[in-house]
Amino acid sequence: MSTTGVIRCKAAVAWEPGKPLTIEDVEVAPPKVHEVRIKIIASGVCHTDQEYLTGQFRQFAAGIVESVGPEVTKFSQGDKVIPLFLPQCGECERCLSPKTNQCRKNWANTQAGVMADGTSRISYNGQQVYQFLGVSSFSQYTVVPDTSLAKIRSDAPLNKVCLLGCGVSTGYGAAVKAAKVEERSSCAVFGLGAVGLAAIMGCQAAKACKIIGVDVNPERFEKARLFGATECVNPRDHAKTIQEVLLDMTSGGVDYALECVGSPVVMTSAFESTRDAWGTCVIVGWSESEAINIKVEKILMGRTLKGTYFGDWKSVEDVPTLVDDYMNEKLKLDEFITDQLPLEKINVAFDHMKKGKGIRTVINLWPEETTPTVETV
Amino acid sequence: MSTTGVIRCKAAVAWEPGKPLTIEDVEVAPPKVHEVRIKIIASGVCHTDQEYLTGQFRQFAAGIVESVGPEVTKFSQGDKVIPLFLPQCGECERCLSPKTNQCRKNWANTQAGVMADGTSRISYNGQQVYQFLGVSSFSQYTVVPDTSLAKIRSDAPLNKVCLLGCGVSTGYGAAVKAAKVEERSSCAVFGLGAVGLAAIMGCQAAKACKIIGVDVNPERFEKARLFGATECVNPRDHAKTIQEVLLDMTSGGVDYALECVGSPVVMTSAFESTRDAWGTCVIVGWSESEAINIKVEKILMGRTLKGTYFGDWKSVEDVPTLVDDYMNEKLKLDEFITDQLPLEKINVAFDHMKKGKGIRTVINLWPEETTPTVETV
Repeated sequence: MSTTGVIRCKAAVAWEPGKPLTIEDVEVAPPKVHEVRIKIIASGVCHTDQEYLTGQFRQFAAGIVESVGPEVTKFSQGDKVIPLFLPQCGECERCLSPKTNQCRKNWANTQAGVMADGTSRISYNGQQVYQFLGVSSFSQYTVVPDTSLAKIRSDAPLNKVCLLGCGVSTGYGAAVKAAKVEERSSCAVFGLGAVGLAAIMGCQAAKACKIIGVDVNPERFEKARLFGATECVNPRDHAKTIQEVLLDMTSGGVDYALECVGSPVVMTSAFESTRDAWGTCVIVGWSESEAINIKVEKILMGRTLKGTYFGDWKSVEDVPTLVDDYMNEKLKLDEFITDQLPLEKINVAFDHMKKGKGIRTVINLWPEETTPTVETV
Repeated sequence: MSTTGVIRCKAAVAWEPGKPLTIEDVEVAPPKVHEVRIKIIASGVCHTDQEYLTGQFRQFAAGIVESVGPEVTKFSQGDKVIPLFLPQCGECERCLSPKTNQCRKNWANTQAGVMADGTSRISYNGQQVYQFLGVSSFSQYTVVPDTSLAKIRSDAPLNKVCLLGCGVSTGYGAAVKAAKVEERSSCAVFGLGAVGLAAIMGCQAAKACKIIGVDVNPERFEKARLFGATECVNPRDHAKTIQEVLLDMTSGGVDYALECVGSPVVMTSAFESTRDAWGTCVIVGWSESEAINIKVEKILMGRTLKGTYFGDWKSVEDVPTLVDDYMNEKLKLDEFITDQLPLEKINVAFDHMKKGKGIRTVINLWPEETTPTVETV
């Protein structure tokens, strides 16, 4: 099933941080041992406010296996797949523990944008192009390690389920897996971007009775209600702090608070908006090198503070189940997509994201193909 | 079973904060509705470093029911009992939840040193004496609400099991109930006073394989090993931070860290000494109005921070089980007791505590009686 040919195709390349991407013709080398080459069908970017500020983004994508390298046993040509920024090798101490999803397989390499052998499979005029988080999904073809890939059902629409590669799974899992929201509980979700909306959807799936969406942008409230918010609050509408407002609204605090912004100040507010005795605050938004201020007394009164990464999902194993949930209408995805654009317009997608316009833009890598398939290239 | 007589007996009274207690003849009124009058047999004080600094102490005691007020159904004259600073009414939302032990019955009154009707049962020359945390165990007799009292087995030695009314249960429960320490895990316990030693005992009971005691006073290491510490570390012996030392000792951090000091700086160290992916830090030491600094990245990498109050035990229900554990030699108590003194020497006990001398001093309220019983007074 392995192939020897180099594929020449279109890709959006970031030559300099902060500069617009340019569409280039790149060469994608064949997969090496334990690698899989994928035809990417749909792709997009995921961020939180903080990630945006620090220029950090994550990508989500879905595609079809074009070829597999030696020793790949779980994938074959034609399989529908979702590349994963978080691997699941299934063999390390962390994969064997039910307590975490944080597999560290190829961690250093992935962070450096290279494969296990220290090189990238993508090049431009003979020059190596680094693969963002080991994925690089803004290319019509890419190569990923076989431990960073989820095989999904053949009838899944790739331009929808691609969303499950990142923020939507993160927010949804933050509610159902990390916070373990209980029936009839009260929840507050801070930040109503895609991650926050997915968290609201998770609270609703867990049958919470009160789901309060919090955002300084009231334009997001309608969408929040669509995903299950029972109330929405704009902190700027109140003279009191948002935690005081929430304590009033819930007679003492919410059972669960989910921070989907990535701001240490909001994290403290989220923590303090939880109830004495059993309030749980889950930090979902990313923020590097910053610290949260946590009042000791509030911890001692029985609160829990925890973080989640990719919604606590074991990536290879759980993403296919999330795809099933979408196909069975237990989980919304279409409602997150506010734009669909061809690869050439990728900078418009970034622009939308930076301006907070819409929720998610999906990039169609093969807009001319109505039912993309893998062909011999 | 109720009695009408006022009892005149000895008590240590604190007339002014920070001043030595004085032994006075006080009057103890009969118990009112849902109250129980107890002959206190043994008593002592519990503190963490921070409590000491802020002048806050908790008391532990054990005694025998002398009489019960109207509507008391669960206690009778002669029952051995442990008064509880944390009640368990069994009826409120919190008591009905398995997620917390923080019953708030009589909370405001208890904090104010009075009973449910707003008055105290203890007086001196007709002047009301406030009951510390609703307990006031430095009196030969006292009155407590029937929801703040655990009935224990009749063969329990009161001068030993009195320790279960406070810090020992707190530390032990912090490990087995709050942290839920697992078999073969690694643990670090910060602070080797009674609470920390009890936490070590809990880690050992949970079959942790590595239990590291941390204290700046190396005189406590021998006792820590007696309770189950496999290693002890003095942060002052190292140029690196204590979290770096622990990360080195455990190849990446401990599974569980228990902070039994009550210092925000030590809390941050404890949190940062836990392992990525599933490290859990439980805050046991008390510190009011201070804040901990928690790095967002460390939370997002899968750590959990939580607090515990009275070791997560449901007080009325669980303290008798802890007494059983002591009687069945599953739990050490004798080893905590470094001094036994009569009531007249109570200031010596405080002095020992302030100087960090010994672990726990037990005050015998009736030193002349070898087997104290309740008599008609």
